Amino acid sequence: MSKIISVNAGSSSLKFQLFEMDDETVITSGVIERIGLEDSIFTIKYNGEKDVTTLPIENHKVAVQLLLDTLIKKEIVKDLDEIKGVGHRVVQGGAYFDQSVIIDEDVVSKIDELKSLAPLHNPAHLTGYYAFKEAIPNAGAVAVFDTAFHQTLEPKSYIYPIPYKYYVENKVRKYGAHGTSHFYVSSRCREMMGNPEHSRIIVAHLGAGGSLTAVKDGKSINTSMGFTPLAGIMMGTRSGDVDPSVIDYLIEEVGLDMKEVIKMLNKESGLLGVSGVSSDFRDVQEAAANGNERAQLALDIFFRRVIAYIGRYFIALGGVDAICFTAGIGENSFFARKEICNLLAEALGIEIDDDANVNGKGDRLISTPNSKVKVYVIPTNEELVIARDTKRLLNL
Amino acid sequence: MSKIISVNAGSSSLKFQLFEMDDETVITSGVIERIGLEDSIFTIKYNGEKDVTTLPIENHKVAVQLLLDTLIKKEIVKDLDEIKGVGHRVVQGGAYFDQSVIIDEDVVSKIDELKSLAPLHNPAHLTGYYAFKEAIPNAGAVAVFDTAFHQTLEPKSYIYPIPYKYYVENKVRKYGAHGTSHFYVSSRCREMMGNPEHSRIIVAHLGAGGSLTAVKDGKSINTSMGFTPLAGIMMGTRSGDVDPSVIDYLIEEVGLDMKEVIKMLNKESGLLGVSGVSSDFRDVQEAAANGNERAQLALDIFFRRVIAYIGRYFIALGGVDAICFTAGIGENSFFARKEICNLLAEALGIEIDDDANVNGKGDRLISTPNSKVKVYVIPTNEELVIARDTKRLLNL
Repeated sequence: MSKIISVNAGSSSLKFQLFEMDDETVITSGVIERIGLEDSIFTIKYNGEKDVTTLPIENHKVAVQLLLDTLIKKEIVKDLDEIKGVGHRVVQGGAYFDQSVIIDEDVVSKIDELKSLAPLHNPAHLTGYYAFKEAIPNAGAVAVFDTAFHQTLEPKSYIYPIPYKYYVENKVRKYGAHGTSHFYVSSRCREMMGNPEHSRIIVAHLGAGGSLTAVKDGKSINTSMGFTPLAGIMMGTRSGDVDPSVIDYLIEEVGLDMKEVIKMLNKESGLLGVSGVSSDFRDVQEAAANGNERAQLALDIFFRRVIAYIGRYFIALGGVDAICFTAGIGENSFFARKEICNLLAEALGIEIDDDANVNGKGDRLISTPNSKVKVYVIPTNEELVIARDTKRLLNL
Repeated sequence: MSKIISVNAGSSSLKFQLFEMDDETVITSGVIERIGLEDSIFTIKYNGEKDVTTLPIENHKVAVQLLLDTLIKKEIVKDLDEIKGVGHRVVQGGAYFDQSVIIDEDVVSKIDELKSLAPLHNPAHLTGYYAFKEAIPNAGAVAVFDTAFHQTLEPKSYIYPIPYKYYVENKVRKYGAHGTSHFYVSSRCREMMGNPEHSRIIVAHLGAGGSLTAVKDGKSINTSMGFTPLAGIMMGTRSGDVDPSVIDYLIEEVGLDMKEVIKMLNKESGLLGVSGVSSDFRDVQEAAANGNERAQLALDIFFRRVIAYIGRYFIALGGVDAICFTAGIGENSFFARKEICNLLAEALGIEIDDDANVNGKGDRLISTPNSKVKVYVIPTNEELVIARDTKRLLNL
């Protein structure tokens, strides 16, 4: 029996899933939120039950110790040495990492070096790494990068049309994100298609954050997030692509400063900014259904920007065999899937099976046999990819 | 005989074309450049000859007087009253103008009010308007707006996914540009297609500046330029779309200020910024042919970004009947047309007639009968649209 824990350490949070890797089952999962505050929240699911505890948790080290103590106390593990590996999600691997790696000093220093590209995330990942390393020193540690899957992009797809020196000297280029999800979903899609030699797949990862990726023969050839996760489609609170002159105008004519603008584009834009209702797709959908025009406008813009990327990737892939929906909205909103597919129907010849779309569960085809493009719903599972990579690299 | 002059007044330049409207022939055309300097350049074409004179020209008023004196001196007109109308190109008409209008005080004040959206252009247009009004007070004056054709965009296509108040309070939205060109070319395309009731046309206006427009049944439904002409495809010196976080990074981490960044994105990016060779497509093409890798990269990015918009508009239009190439690169570079169409071939079933592409002249179809999408080259003629609108509105 080999147990592996997938860890996603944020600046004030720590998500985890503990796997039994022999059959890839999830033994327990949960999250510790508001780390560093007096009212941190520890949520853990085990044996179909969910425990939520509010208590002060000073830092990530304390959070990890609390988690491990709880595993023992609840008899989820008898001995912490049962946990053979810790797989850490890392947001930004830059151009250094095109695949997952065992964490050593060199890897640590590169993750640290890349913090200017991911100032909130990379330092938090390292904090999580050190906390586990101290608590269970015998377990191996692996880093799984959100950017790695997109390292197959060619320069013509990742270089921005700005002076070349900013790429050479400052590493300004497209890195993309959600790579682990795009890898998992596109791999699963190829399986479901019967592992054809050639495949042209568009993955629509639509959640609070969202991105689309064009996957050709298993390789990411383009993705909608860019230098950072701000670019691409409209999201819950993020704008996605905007004319760069808008920033200049808001600063020079409206009187905002850069910090205000970037906060506005990241935290106050997207579905929230247009609708004025909420950043949550379900809230906006409900408001629109009740006649709120700005909520309807927000949905319309959201859909338009998703199909715009599908159009781009249809061309980039030289056609498309399958479109996959995943993540919060992609997995759970049959309404969003239906609206998007309706907008694609005329150009791409897509036809949706309403019953499969509305009533189906889990991995499934939701297009009809007549549809010229297959459409799938594939719930993403980044934690499993992290655990699998950890097992493989550590030879567990 | 009714003569109309089309005028494009820039901050330090004045382009003109004088038409005989009975048969829409160009009698004379030219440009006055470097206005305000000691070495202004006056170029005028007449009867197949081109005169270039260098002389000090203090301001637009002097420039207009010089032009009109020259028309008399060269006996191009016998009396200035032969010029019945002056059509002025205006870059930014905001949401006020969805078509050309006779210029009156209200129009002047709106063009002036919109100068914050086009600080270099709108004031120059008014300077040109006053200079002609003083010199030939009997001629009527019409404003033809670069943005008017795009006023048919729906809110879901012109509203940015940022807080709604910036649209309401600050007029931040997509306006687009090159509207007169997109109107002319798409209208001509519909004629060449036999004026079908329904048509889905993508116009690729590719010059030093460039934009693509999706035209459905004669109406612009989306366009690649945005709040300003910085957005959209890669251009000669403009970046087009970039992750907004790049701006933040260059300011917060690299140490540039906003003015430097916006200048860089407008003047030092695009083909010039990536290639390091030139902003002129022909120079970059030549350098690439001679093995310059950055020049080749610049071309590759340029083509990718054009086809990305064609993909978007293919979806937005629900399919595409025709793609039209126009403007400097679009009209003159068979290489660019061929490369772009090759990248579209697989997804859209496009097939180019090499002879028509390479050896043909003027308005023409360059796709084969087997091509699933018709591809045209249609030299643009914004000046003629301006003259026609001027004639129509002034009842000449």
